[in-house]
This record gives sequence, structure tokens and C-alpha cells, in this order.
Amino acid sequence: MLGLMQNQPLLISSLLTFAERHHGDGEIVSRRVEGDIHRTTYRQLAGRARQLASALDAQGLAMGERVASIAWNGYRHMEMYFGVSGSGRVLHTINPRLHPEQIAWVVNHAEDRVLCFDMTFLPIVQAIHSHCPTVQKWVMLCDADKLPADSGIPNLVSYEAWIGAMRTDYAWPQFDENTASSICYTSGTTGNPKGVLYSHRSSVLHAYAAALPDVMCLSSRDAVLPVVPMFHVNAWGIPYSAALTGCKLVFPGPALDGKSVYELIEAEGVTFAAGVPTVWQMLLTHVRSQGQKFSSLTRTVIGGAACPPAMIAAFEDEFGVHVLHAWGMTETSPLGTLCTPKKKQLAWPLEQQRALQQKQGRAICGVDMKIVGGDGQELPWDGKTYGDLLVRGPWILERYFKGDSPLVEDASGLGWFPTGDVATIDADGFMHITDRSKDVIKSGGEWISSIDVENIAMGHPAVAMAACIGMPHPKWDERPIVAIALKPGASATREDILAFYEGKTAKWQIPDDVVFVDAIPLGATGKMLKTRLREQLAGYKLPGL
Amino acid sequence: MLGLMQNQPLLISSLLTFAERHHGDGEIVSRRVEGDIHRTTYRQLAGRARQLASALDAQGLAMGERVASIAWNGYRHMEMYFGVSGSGRVLHTINPRLHPEQIAWVVNHAEDRVLCFDMTFLPIVQAIHSHCPTVQKWVMLCDADKLPADSGIPNLVSYEAWIGAMRTDYAWPQFDENTASSICYTSGTTGNPKGVLYSHRSSVLHAYAAALPDVMCLSSRDAVLPVVPMFHVNAWGIPYSAALTGCKLVFPGPALDGKSVYELIEAEGVTFAAGVPTVWQMLLTHVRSQGQKFSSLTRTVIGGAACPPAMIAAFEDEFGVHVLHAWGMTETSPLGTLCTPKKKQLAWPLEQQRALQQKQGRAICGVDMKIVGGDGQELPWDGKTYGDLLVRGPWILERYFKGDSPLVEDASGLGWFPTGDVATIDADGFMHITDRSKDVIKSGGEWISSIDVENIAMGHPAVAMAACIGMPHPKWDERPIVAIALKPGASATREDILAFYEGKTAKWQIPDDVVFVDAIPLGATGKMLKTRLREQLAGYKLPGL
Repeated sequence: MLGLMQNQPLLISSLLTFAERHHGDGEIVSRRVEGDIHRTTYRQLAGRARQLASALDAQGLAMGERVASIAWNGYRHMEMYFGVSGSGRVLHTINPRLHPEQIAWVVNHAEDRVLCFDMTFLPIVQAIHSHCPTVQKWVMLCDADKLPADSGIPNLVSYEAWIGAMRTDYAWPQFDENTASSICYTSGTTGNPKGVLYSHRSSVLHAYAAALPDVMCLSSRDAVLPVVPMFHVNAWGIPYSAALTGCKLVFPGPALDGKSVYELIEAEGVTFAAGVPTVWQMLLTHVRSQGQKFSSLTRTVIGGAACPPAMIAAFEDEFGVHVLHAWGMTETSPLGTLCTPKKKQLAWPLEQQRALQQKQGRAICGVDMKIVGGDGQELPWDGKTYGDLLVRGPWILERYFKGDSPLVEDASGLGWFPTGDVATIDADGFMHITDRSKDVIKSGGEWISSIDVENIAMGHPAVAMAACIGMPHPKWDERPIVAIALKPGASATREDILAFYEGKTAKWQIPDDVVFVDAIPLGATGKMLKTRLREQLAGYKLPGL
Repeated sequence: MLGLMQNQPLLISSLLTFAERHHGDGEIVSRRVEGDIHRTTYRQLAGRARQLASALDAQGLAMGERVASIAWNGYRHMEMYFGVSGSGRVLHTINPRLHPEQIAWVVNHAEDRVLCFDMTFLPIVQAIHSHCPTVQKWVMLCDADKLPADSGIPNLVSYEAWIGAMRTDYAWPQFDENTASSICYTSGTTGNPKGVLYSHRSSVLHAYAAALPDVMCLSSRDAVLPVVPMFHVNAWGIPYSAALTGCKLVFPGPALDGKSVYELIEAEGVTFAAGVPTVWQMLLTHVRSQGQKFSSLTRTVIGGAACPPAMIAAFEDEFGVHVLHAWGMTETSPLGTLCTPKKKQLAWPLEQQRALQQKQGRAICGVDMKIVGGDGQELPWDGKTYGDLLVRGPWILERYFKGDSPLVEDASGLGWFPTGDVATIDADGFMHITDRSKDVIKSGGEWISSIDVENIAMGHPAVAMAACIGMPHPKWDERPIVAIALKPGASATREDILAFYEGKTAKWQIPDDVVFVDAIPLGATGKMLKTRLREQLAGYKLPGL
């Protein structure tokens, strides 16, 4: 027997319609590529999103066809989030930090029909346009008078000219909530990028969950600064959650340096900011150097990479800004866990609370997670045992676009997504990433966290960067070695580094060897490319073998 | 093109599984009919809910069959919420304040198969059981040794004996999220009660929305006291939202007097309480008489009836407890609007903020609302114009159980539920109920709020209760009269009452006549029965006609 409640699909357009009707004068402030500060409202944004949808109709784009963006965080990008998805097309957000060849690859793989880009990225588009035959229209996100006369891109139009003449009374279509809404490619460190195709349902459910008090705690009284880019897993879903709450939105555009971000926070009364550790480090460095304080910022979500303990302490103790450590992936929309304390933990000693904050946190309702051993059996939640982290939920990937399903079925037939992370979970459900599955070193039946090995080396004053990888060993299967890039002008010997491990970890977890390199190879998003490091070390043999 | 995210249904059992796995030691505290305080956890509750599901299997109940409860707020009722719905059956929560004949009517209409009741309600069950042929099993929510030997109810069993022997390893079935989960009958003041059949989808979506910062703002750090009964629209969804957040739950059982409620709040560190004005009045009276304060309570949601301004002021100014006025109906799951301020309103003068709090508030994301005139056209949001309030959303009723759809279609074919309330909506989207549609007096093309007329009369020192109804008038269509029940020993004349209106409202809104009655007829939930009043006044004619 079915219930008798209204059969109303969860659509991204409904979030915008809600904001337009119930928070029409809610502010959206953007620092633009043009250099100025632009102000608009949800009401105006909704009108322009409808104009964009009309423009896509006029272009003849069918439901489900892809529209790409290469853009900073700003109101025009926000219009694309709602105008493209709301009209039934699929928004493809492209990471401009990828190599142009990779960008052309994802454009072709997604078969993008329209590509809109910020002026900053004109050189990228000039490099790729002739290799992207599916794209019918190239649109620069600017006024008509900013369009370069000699771009070399056929039929290039300005976004404002394109949408400006369109009707604002477009009616959002109603359709199945499982319809695809947007696609984001993983910046895989191995192989080609893989496309994650979100649905309206997954995006709206994630928007509700992300705004919960135990997650980002977003209300209409917040002013939210997503420093995390809108080309990184939908800026962690903030554009959708913002419309759902009617909060003020503050977009930083291209200016992610400490001074610009700080000034925007203060000028716009930002209460909540979300970003990755590297950007926050720039902000902290700037604010400290100027002896400044935050007058409105109360909390920040930090994810994308593990947040260093010193950064947590700085935000909390120096600046009174509460730090929420988060974990997620492109495949998880992205929010999987968030480190908000439980009630009993509020009574813990400060040191213990700070230690808790270093964990990636507990599952958001909707997500379930578990850790499993090599045999696929679930491992205990004791905060010590670690295993492969698996997750499931309505905003977790089922299969890749034009690809396979990576899901692993459990005994009752439920599918779990293997995250590729290795983690512990404690008795209170707090998860802590200890390594990537492909990086963990399997030595004599025990696992050694490459990140732990690297973190110790990083504490040595001469070390700029360290990368730990496993090398084949006939008796132990694998043994760790550590590759070291020294700071300019600094020096250290193999023996110095190995001696530095004494007393800091178990003897069997100390690497067998140290290899000095000029630089650790990094990918487009700043992640270490250990595969490339392994290639560089082809022919290497462990000492004594 | 469909998205490629996991196809995981929104099921009530998933909320409990989440609480069990991620908040297993979260507390559930109940004051029991037995008189003691009972303590359990989400982990234990999940085990017992599975035992109940097993017991329903053993009873041979098919998917979709109804299991009724006549029970106070407590852990066993909570087990029914999850064990009955989670296993695919439908929980029918019955209001014990209905007349036994009405209770038998809803049991028969719902075709309940099992009926579980608290010991308090044994007399009701003794009165109805022989009139309820669909019920196969009567279960008293108690230990075996509490079962009366001579109840007269065939095959009466105790809940503990019934579920105690069952397996705890029952596996929750996976099914379509649109499956019916529970049914609640309206306590209509006219005609037979109407059944509202909720689905798993509507209940889970409502649970997410209800926990949002702009709604109840529930986190795992809260201790939540639902004083609103679990037989009133699922206690406003708190049992589901509690499992979703893992918050501590505190159930008051049958003890709703001021002293008992206050002691429970203090003993259990309650941070958030939800209830109707009458219960809060008892609480305030008690706390004031004892010169007490609240040491943990920070906020309360008040709904079910308009909250008197004096109550808002008392909670806020005397006790520092933030009051959130709410509006909803059985047909809306029930949360439709909540009066949480927007950012700009926090800067308003106190008096203006208090006036805002008297409104029922703004739409929760998922709900849309509008006011329409007699011609069905949408009316402006100016805070003055009032019209019939219509709502829509995924947790709003589509049609009644075994009944019709009351929805009204708009020009684009979207269905809206006519609430039967008359309201204004201001430019910020804050809705204010001014009357019930059937009670509003239509006089010369203008509407007169019966509630406004009553509120003025209630301010007269001799008046105990006032009810305003419209009487037919050849020129004006209708004109208001007011029926007055005087306080014991007090006296007032028709002229006294009419003079009391002078200067308090527009001349044309002053009633044409005053009728003195011994008492205003009230329904089971304390609402005035104006239909019965009209029957009592059959033959009445307006002065001068």
C-alpha cells in the first residue's frame, strides 16, 4: 500500500524557486574577474537562471545534454548551477587546473555542447577549442564589450549578450528526480578521469543533509563564503544548501590570497567559510602578519585534505573560529563525514577535544560507512583497527559515467562504494583516515600508514616534502622507503633521517631506506603522484636485497 | 538521462539503523505509566523494534496492514514507530481523547489488526473491543505481571511477553519509499475523522527538514522533550528527527502537569521542548509559583494553536527561553511554517521582534504556500491582505485514506492543498493565520476575522470564553455576532460588551449582537465547535431583521 502524500519530485529548480519566493532579497555578493564587487539577490538570480534556461532552449539543447563551465566562484556560475540543471540539462564543472589535454579529454568524454568560461581561462579555451568537436557554442562569462575581437574561437559570444535578450518567464520543467543534474570528473592520480553523474535527487538530499546542525549548520542568518571552488564537487554542495536556507552567499572569484579573502570576510560579515588547508594557510599567514582578528567568522569547514593539527589550534585558540574537519570525495557528492562533537565530548579536556578534531568525523545521516579487512569482513570500531573504508547512501556513486560500477555487495545484497581510503572508526563512530588504500604498506600481515611515515619526516627541519612508498620484499611482502625533497639550502643524510624516526614510531614501521629527490611529483590539485615517483624509482632495490 | 547515484530508498528503518550504528549509546529517557523513570539507548531500542517486527511477522501481518497505538509518549511507543513502519506495516496512532465511539470508528475505518495501548487506556479498550472485529490481537504496553486477570478482553497479552521471546536479528526489509508508513486521523470538528496516510518518503524528508537550523535546529548535542503527544501527527515528527540526529530523547509519559514537566526538564538537561500552549501555560504557572528558572532549556517550539503574546513574552523575557511559533496540520506531516527570524530581523527593536514572533512564520524548504482570494487568484504578500492559505510539498497530503483528493490545481497543473486557514503573508514570507476559512465572516465583500472579534471580547474582565460566528444578512451576506460565556459570578450586559469594542477595531468589524451562553461547546482536542454552537442558535435572527 502506498502513502497518499503529494508526489513532488526533488528538483534543483525547486530550491531556487524556494529562495526566490521566500528569500527573494537574500544577498549574493561576488568578487569578479573584472575586479569589482558585484551584488545581486536570489530573486534576480532566479530571473537570470530562467534566461539562461531559455537560451539553452533557443540553442536547441535536449534534456540531458551537457553544458560545461570553466569558472571561478561567482554569481554567473551560480546561475549555471540552476539554469542548466533546472532546465534538465547536465552541468559539467571543469577544473581549470587540469592540463589542457585533460580538459579536452573530459569535454570530449562528456560530449559537452556548450562551454562557458571566465575571462581568466581564455588561453585554455584557445588551446582546446579545435580539439572539441562536440561543442557547438563557446560562451565567455562577461559583458559583450569585454569580448576579445581576435580570440580565434569561432562564434564566441558573451554570456550577457547571449542570455540578455531571453525571456525571464521561463517555467521550470517538472521531471523524474533521478534525472542527471551535473557531472564532475575525478582528478584521478592514475588513469583517465572518471565522471560522476549526480542526480537532482542526490543533490537535493545532500543539500538538506549538508545544512543540518551537525553538518554545516546553515541558516538564513548565515553569510557563507565557499572558498572551495565550484569546480570541486559542486563547492561541497553549498550553492544548493544556500538556496535551501536563503543564507547570504559571498563568492571570492579568483582572489584566493589571504588579504583578499580576509577583506571579503570582514566586509560582508561572513559567518561561515569552507575551504581546503592550503587556502586557509594563506589566510592565517596574512591575518597573523597584520595582527588582525575575525569579527564575524564563527566556524569553518576544512576538507579536501587532512587539516594539520596546528591549523586547527590556530583557528580555535588564536582566532576563536570553530574548525569542522570534513571528509568526502567526488563520488560522495561530497559530504560523507563531518567532525561535529557529540554532547559528552563537549565535557572532554581541551587536548582530547583537539585530538578528536583531527579525525574526519562521523557519518552524516543518509551515509553509512564501515571498514573492512582484506577478506571483506567488517572490522571493529575501536579507533585502532584500520581497514578499507566503504560507504553507501543516496548521494554516493553507483557507477561511473560510461563506466563500471565499483560497488562491493555485502551479504544482504547492499552495494557499498570502496573509497580507496584506509581508516579507523572509534566507538563513537568517528572516522579517521590513515592512508590511501593504494599507498598503505602491507608489511608482514600488518599495515603501515604511508602518511604516518611522511608526517614524521616532515617534522625534520631540513625536509620540505616527504613521500613514503612500499617496495617489494621477499619476506615481508612490502617494506616502506621514504623519498625526501630537502628545503633549499638545507642538508641531511640518510642516517639523520632514519635516526629522526627513533622513538617516534614502532621499530618495524621505520622505513628501510631514504631516497633524496629534487622534488616530489605533484598532480593538478596538489596531490602527490606516487605512481610517477614509483616510475622515477624504477630499478630501485631495497638495501640488502 | 538518469543520474548514476545509488538508488537507496528513504526508509524509516534507515533512520533507526543510523541511530543504532552511529549513536548507539544515545539516551532515551521515559517517565512511564508505571510511575518510574526508564532509561534506554538507541542501540537497545533498535533491538526491541526488531523484536516487535518479528512479532508482527509471527502474527502473520502482511505488508501494509495497520497496527494501532493508544499510548503516551514513551520508549515503547517509539519502538512501535520504528518496528511497525520499518517492517512495512502502517502505524495508526489514535488520540485517546476522542470519544470511545469515535475511537471504534477510526479502528474500523483503518481496519486495524493489532492494537497496543498503555495501561491508562484499558477502560477505552474495554469499551470498544467488542465493536472492533478487524482487531486480531490486543496488546497492553506493560510487563506480563501487570496484565489484569479479568480485563474482559479476549486473548489480551502484555507487550513485553509478546515481543520478549522474539529474535533481535530481524533484517529490515527494503521496499519502495512511497510505501505507507503511518496513518493519523484528523480530529475534524465537522463530520467523520479523515485519515492521512504518510509514506516513508514523506516522513524521512520531513525528518531532515524538521531538524534544519531554521526549523527545530536539532543536533546530537540536544536533549529533546516532545510534550506534544505521539498521537498528534507523529509528535511533529520528533521521533524521526531524533533518530536522524542521535539526540537525547526525553518522554514525559502521562505526566503533563507543570511540576512533572519542569522536574523532567531539569533532571535530564532538556535543551529543546515542543508543545501546545495549554501545556506550556501549566508549566509557566508552576515555575512562577515556585520562583524557579530553567537551567538547560534554550528554546521551545509552540504550535497546535496560536501562542498568546503573553506566553511568548514570558518565555523570552522572564526565562530566557527562545520561542519558535509553528504552524502545521495533520495533512502537512505537520510542519509547514516556523517563525525563525531572518538575519535583518535580528536588528529590529525588541517590540517589533515580539510582534514578528506572533506570526506562524515562514515556509520550511520543501513547502510552498500562497494565499488566494475567492476567485482562486494569488494575493499579494503585503502582511495585510488575507486569503485562503494553500500549501504544497512532498510531505503534504495528496488524498485522504479511502477518500478524495482535496487538492486545487493551479494554472500550470500543480496541486495545492487548501488548508482551511485564512492568513496573511508579509513581504519577508512570514505567514500569519487570521482565521479558519469556515469561520471567517464575509461581510459586504470584506472578510472579518472571527478570531480578532473573539480576542477583543476575551480581554473583557467578565468574559471566560467568546465565540464569533457569522449570521445571514440580506444586504451584507453575513454579519458577525459573538457568543459569550461569562466567568463564574461575573456579569456583563450586551451593551457592556459592544461598548468594549469601541476604539479597538473598525466600526464595521464590531459584532451586530451578543448572545450569552452557559458554555461554548468544545471538541476532543479543546477546539471550539462552532457548528454545534450554530445548531444551538438555530432560529436566531440578527437584530432588526
